[in-house]
Amino acid sequence: LDKISIGMLGLGTVGSGVVKVIRDHQDKLVHGVGCAVQIKRILVQDLEKERDVEVDRSIITAISAEIIDDPTIDVIVEVMGGIEETRKLLLRALENKKHIVTANKDLMALHGPELLETASKNGCDLFYEASVAGGIPILRSVVDGFASDRIHKIIGIVNGTTNYILTKMSDEGKSYLEALKEAQDLGYAEADPEADVEGIDAARKMAILSTLGFSMNVGLGDVRFKGISRVSQEDIEYGKQLGYTMKLIGAAEREGDRIDVTVQPALISDSHPLAAVKNENNAVYVYGDAVGETMFYGPGAGSLPTATAVVSDLAGVMRNMRLGVNGHSAVFPQFPKKLKTTDEVFKKYFLRLVVEDEVGTLAEVTSLFSQEGISVEKIWQNPKRGSISEIVLVTHKASQKNFEDILVKLNDSRVVKRVGSSYRIEI
Amino acid sequence: LDKISIGMLGLGTVGSGVVKVIRDHQDKLVHGVGCAVQIKRILVQDLEKERDVEVDRSIITAISAEIIDDPTIDVIVEVMGGIEETRKLLLRALENKKHIVTANKDLMALHGPELLETASKNGCDLFYEASVAGGIPILRSVVDGFASDRIHKIIGIVNGTTNYILTKMSDEGKSYLEALKEAQDLGYAEADPEADVEGIDAARKMAILSTLGFSMNVGLGDVRFKGISRVSQEDIEYGKQLGYTMKLIGAAEREGDRIDVTVQPALISDSHPLAAVKNENNAVYVYGDAVGETMFYGPGAGSLPTATAVVSDLAGVMRNMRLGVNGHSAVFPQFPKKLKTTDEVFKKYFLRLVVEDEVGTLAEVTSLFSQEGISVEKIWQNPKRGSISEIVLVTHKASQKNFEDILVKLNDSRVVKRVGSSYRIEI
Repeated sequence: LDKISIGMLGLGTVGSGVVKVIRDHQDKLVHGVGCAVQIKRILVQDLEKERDVEVDRSIITAISAEIIDDPTIDVIVEVMGGIEETRKLLLRALENKKHIVTANKDLMALHGPELLETASKNGCDLFYEASVAGGIPILRSVVDGFASDRIHKIIGIVNGTTNYILTKMSDEGKSYLEALKEAQDLGYAEADPEADVEGIDAARKMAILSTLGFSMNVGLGDVRFKGISRVSQEDIEYGKQLGYTMKLIGAAEREGDRIDVTVQPALISDSHPLAAVKNENNAVYVYGDAVGETMFYGPGAGSLPTATAVVSDLAGVMRNMRLGVNGHSAVFPQFPKKLKTTDEVFKKYFLRLVVEDEVGTLAEVTSLFSQEGISVEKIWQNPKRGSISEIVLVTHKASQKNFEDILVKLNDSRVVKRVGSSYRIEI
Repeated sequence: LDKISIGMLGLGTVGSGVVKVIRDHQDKLVHGVGCAVQIKRILVQDLEKERDVEVDRSIITAISAEIIDDPTIDVIVEVMGGIEETRKLLLRALENKKHIVTANKDLMALHGPELLETASKNGCDLFYEASVAGGIPILRSVVDGFASDRIHKIIGIVNGTTNYILTKMSDEGKSYLEALKEAQDLGYAEADPEADVEGIDAARKMAILSTLGFSMNVGLGDVRFKGISRVSQEDIEYGKQLGYTMKLIGAAEREGDRIDVTVQPALISDSHPLAAVKNENNAVYVYGDAVGETMFYGPGAGSLPTATAVVSDLAGVMRNMRLGVNGHSAVFPQFPKKLKTTDEVFKKYFLRLVVEDEVGTLAEVTSLFSQEGISVEKIWQNPKRGSISEIVLVTHKASQKNFEDILVKLNDSRVVKRVGSSYRIEI
């Protein structure tokens, strides 16, 4: 084996990066893996489109079969995105005994088990490091680095767009819409930012991380998620005054055989290193029973970081090909999935209540909390802003069920005009 | 292959941890690797000694040959430490076709190339993840995660003892000796703390990281290192006032084909996440040409974190055994080692000068700097402490050679009583 031929599906931002990385680091790849890699064919939609990278016209095609069914192509690099069409192409490629490297988190979150099983059945590798947190080799670390430990918690910032927006809101006092606009101008956010700002992208990543970390089949539907579009400048400011930073936090926790996976804007302690993770960067903490706390930090997105993750996976496939051991890397879930109920999840909470400015309000509010059995750690009455009277408070740990109950009671209370906002305090 | 037998050399802190991790996570190992692991024999010095973990008396031996020459033992786990004797045992084990997992950084920094070559020749794996930064899977990340990228910088905190001491000095105002004593009481520092506090341990780790990261054979002798025993409370305080935190920083940098590897107490910007790495924790930044900045954080030492790294390596060996592909993981240096000279290393510096309290001192000092061609970014005259008159300054980037020259000139100057201290500003 002196050369490995790859077929690429897609030549967008990440695809162009892959072409560049393979070109620029050919020497290192040959040294590390022992053979050269050649891009034999690239599938594109528009043959005429201008590209970020120079590619010989003869290797570009608009016909997927010229790649999927070409017996001389060893590995498929899928960087075209999409779900149903892409799933079919990859399944056919696997039946044709081609190995696959993909950066497609949507596909993996939805059809990961089916694809991995098909790969295994056909003796093929299917690697997808690039699908989670671009430049951080977190999947490899979760699988290999923790091969002998049991993970009980994965928590972090897994979406670059929302972290950029929250950083600008927090550090520069920008409004949500200003910050979003800036992220879009810089190319960090899509024209339609929904998947990012509503937490869907982060939830998909947490599903993949939980599946690997807890060895259970966790899907997008198992993640309770909420985005950042309703985070206000005032909540960020109150958080600051209490020593907290606002971040979109993905959290996956296991106790015994039951797990809880969430994505939501949450407050974290200023002194925690996650608070220092700014702009488009990502960081993931992994807690093992034996190792304790570890953290991986890096660029969450971007053409070259993601492309590097793709090509590192490609190097893994190539190494396995040279040794003749493809199709053995996948580790299938060991445990049945069991989700915690809301009375099994305990957290501290931040609450901002818009209240009547009258005597007895504080007593009424605290009595509601004590009826619900939730104890209050800090309470801050009347930090008046203009004509609005507010109570800001931080609870001790309470079950999510109790907390949801008290939100209802507070909304019903005569002295509370409305619950201005509420956030988990994660760390 | 339904069971893999291992022989352990050593049953101290890390060894006991390895026994515990193998016991507690046997299920996960069997699931991930496909077969069970059995500890067949353990070499100890003192058969009678009380251990942290319960071990059947029948598997303990004081005779190394009962492990090294036992044909039924597949893998040696070396956690006894030591250099010359250990080197000989491991070389013999490799000739006997046994795979090796070691946590011995001293040995790997000194004899890594010889051992890796012998392993490769005998078709054996030799893994040593645990030798650098205990709980962080940094070696695996540097090798696999960056397989398709070119690393140009590795910088971080790679010694837990010194980071604990500096944290206590910085956050609690303790003196160096108080903090050292506390670290010793807690078991973070040895009774003889020299290897840690003088930077030797960190230098060994940087040698291993540089070897892998730059694909050059870097030894301890190639690392310029300095410890923390002369770091004073006042330097930490001045640093704080300028927005910097004092850390023992390992830095390995490459430009073109030339590298520079150092370990020294240095100032880093408060806002940089490394400044938030406290106590016994470690963190390593790796910069790739394509990926950009990534960081790995975790416990730098400790029985269970280190043991987990050992057993994760063991899982790698076992996986390779089942696939029949041992002895192919080592990647040998691709490039000849070339070190930068001191006129090729450019850094900003912090300087504290004890000066004469008289008119013209500042002019004299600044003129020395301008003669040397070093420009000054900040200068802070006479932050007088008692009867001592001082000048504190921060330079723009200057070559190390120029900086060393100016230190000599300053010491010779009539107005400068002495150079109180000087530190690199790394970030």
